[in-house]
Amino acid sequence: MSKTNRCIILAQRPRYGVPTRDMFRMESVPASEPREGQVLVRTLLLAIDPYLYGRVASVSQHSSPLPLGSVMDGATVGRVEASHHPRFAVGDLVHGAWGWQDYHVTDGSDLAKVDPELPRPSYELSALGLSGFAGYIAVNELLQVKPGETLSFGAALGGVGQIVGQLGKLRGARVVAISGGAEKCRYAEEQLGFDVCLDRKAADFKARLETEFSKSGVDCIVMAVGPGGLQAAMPHFRNYSRIAVCGLIGSYSAATPSAGQAQDWGGLVQEVNRRRLRMFGVVAKDLRGTPLDVQFRKDMKQWILEGKIKPVEHMVEGLEGAPDMMRGVFEGRNFGKAIVRISD
Amino acid sequence: MSKTNRCIILAQRPRYGVPTRDMFRMESVPASEPREGQVLVRTLLLAIDPYLYGRVASVSQHSSPLPLGSVMDGATVGRVEASHHPRFAVGDLVHGAWGWQDYHVTDGSDLAKVDPELPRPSYELSALGLSGFAGYIAVNELLQVKPGETLSFGAALGGVGQIVGQLGKLRGARVVAISGGAEKCRYAEEQLGFDVCLDRKAADFKARLETEFSKSGVDCIVMAVGPGGLQAAMPHFRNYSRIAVCGLIGSYSAATPSAGQAQDWGGLVQEVNRRRLRMFGVVAKDLRGTPLDVQFRKDMKQWILEGKIKPVEHMVEGLEGAPDMMRGVFEGRNFGKAIVRISD
Repeated sequence: MSKTNRCIILAQRPRYGVPTRDMFRMESVPASEPREGQVLVRTLLLAIDPYLYGRVASVSQHSSPLPLGSVMDGATVGRVEASHHPRFAVGDLVHGAWGWQDYHVTDGSDLAKVDPELPRPSYELSALGLSGFAGYIAVNELLQVKPGETLSFGAALGGVGQIVGQLGKLRGARVVAISGGAEKCRYAEEQLGFDVCLDRKAADFKARLETEFSKSGVDCIVMAVGPGGLQAAMPHFRNYSRIAVCGLIGSYSAATPSAGQAQDWGGLVQEVNRRRLRMFGVVAKDLRGTPLDVQFRKDMKQWILEGKIKPVEHMVEGLEGAPDMMRGVFEGRNFGKAIVRISD
Repeated sequence: MSKTNRCIILAQRPRYGVPTRDMFRMESVPASEPREGQVLVRTLLLAIDPYLYGRVASVSQHSSPLPLGSVMDGATVGRVEASHHPRFAVGDLVHGAWGWQDYHVTDGSDLAKVDPELPRPSYELSALGLSGFAGYIAVNELLQVKPGETLSFGAALGGVGQIVGQLGKLRGARVVAISGGAEKCRYAEEQLGFDVCLDRKAADFKARLETEFSKSGVDCIVMAVGPGGLQAAMPHFRNYSRIAVCGLIGSYSAATPSAGQAQDWGGLVQEVNRRRLRMFGVVAKDLRGTPLDVQFRKDMKQWILEGKIKPVEHMVEGLEGAPDMMRGVFEGRNFGKAIVRISD
């Protein structure tokens, strides 16, 4: 009486980078039975992380692309339903990255236990997940944002942005964020304490951004969407301003930079020189398991328990909703870190 | 019986960035007489540093532009010819930045004595000058080039490049340099010990560069000319490769980046993310007088005395030759750090 494992398969690669429904197909297969030394995990939650856009492209941003026909990749939280493993008991909450499927059978080497002190297990995927870690690496490790400095970034409520802004406030910075939609901006200002959050869809957006940047100059930028914010900030950068590039969802639409882009590097390079900029590429996955990761988990958990970091999560229901959520994040429709609830 | 002070005046700004003779005019005026507390210095040597291209442009790279009608800027070495100052005696060799003129009268606050242990006073303008300091900041401070790494850069015999390459060799790196002309390349390989120096004017240049980069990958780039080398190196960068941007002589031809350039920043930013690059703008003038500068002068002098760094200087004769030399550096005609000898 084996259980049915629904899994979502990568069937084709995105055209023009936009993740569409027809890239995926759902299959139902019998779940494997756990043998001696193995556990059976039921998937509860699935994170839609920006790195997934790279995984499905033919040229991956950060690693070899996911082969067609594979179960779609993704960070997950689950509950142990059967265990023949001394370290895991039925009912244990675990997290890992077994992808878009209902069940996972494993020897446990790819599992870690969900921290029981966390208010919600989903925080393993949001504030403590890859996007939270990327924000921490950017603000605390690379930019080392200082009190009184101005920190700016886009996708204010996205998985990275919400952490970047809250860490910026914890460090005493002036936080000038950008988001798509008035409601998100209000939330970022009122609930997360960002100094300013500007709606990029508003008619006066560019003028208001210019005004805000003019007030204080800009010391630090975290990029996770596209180069628009960087271009707007450039004239306002102080010498030795710092830029962390956590990803560029917008740029994933081109599998490789076009020849036209490559030919115009001189403009940005010249700005780097004239303004003595520091620019850092951030790929949080590289640093999983390092001492920095250990420190991050310790710090982030503490801040969450003290109420200093409030994770914002956009929860959608059902495995079948994952493809649409992936597109939604690409289009900026998520109100917080995008998480799919697969089961209770 | 005052002396005649010939000085070269900035009469107009460059068109299209190219420094031309008609930007300058020579004037002859009586040299001031030094009063109590002042010294009269006769100019012996004048450096043509890349930052001068920024100083004459209407939009300066690094500082406010030099006003039209001013004596042209530049780092200098001179000899004290008259002194009413307790710290200076007639015959003392001094260095500073009093610009393109035969004489300088000063209270001494803008002078430092030439280190008497240096084999040649001109080394104050080359290896110990701003371009040598920029190379040191790039290789030793920012990139921290490691043994076995591959370091690449252009203008191999230019003021920055010659120091970058020699420091790279001192640190045990594989040095892949680019220069304009077979003779310069031979010199860089045979006299300075660079592993490879490729002639960018050779027909097979691109293929050979590709071959050299393919052999070892690229860990570090120092940019002082234009983005061409960066573009060639990009596919061969290892993750976490580092880039120091010391200047872009080629880009000075545009007073400000064009709108077209700004619109294509995404391509480079995407590479910074996907390859986890670190990019640093370097402006050596900022760090004059800091503890790093003190350490630099100590280190560089030691290396020169030990024969580990061999400064390469391109000396031209006569103040009137300065404008042409400035254009020559812009066009890559110099064989070593460009220095104008004004007087013996």
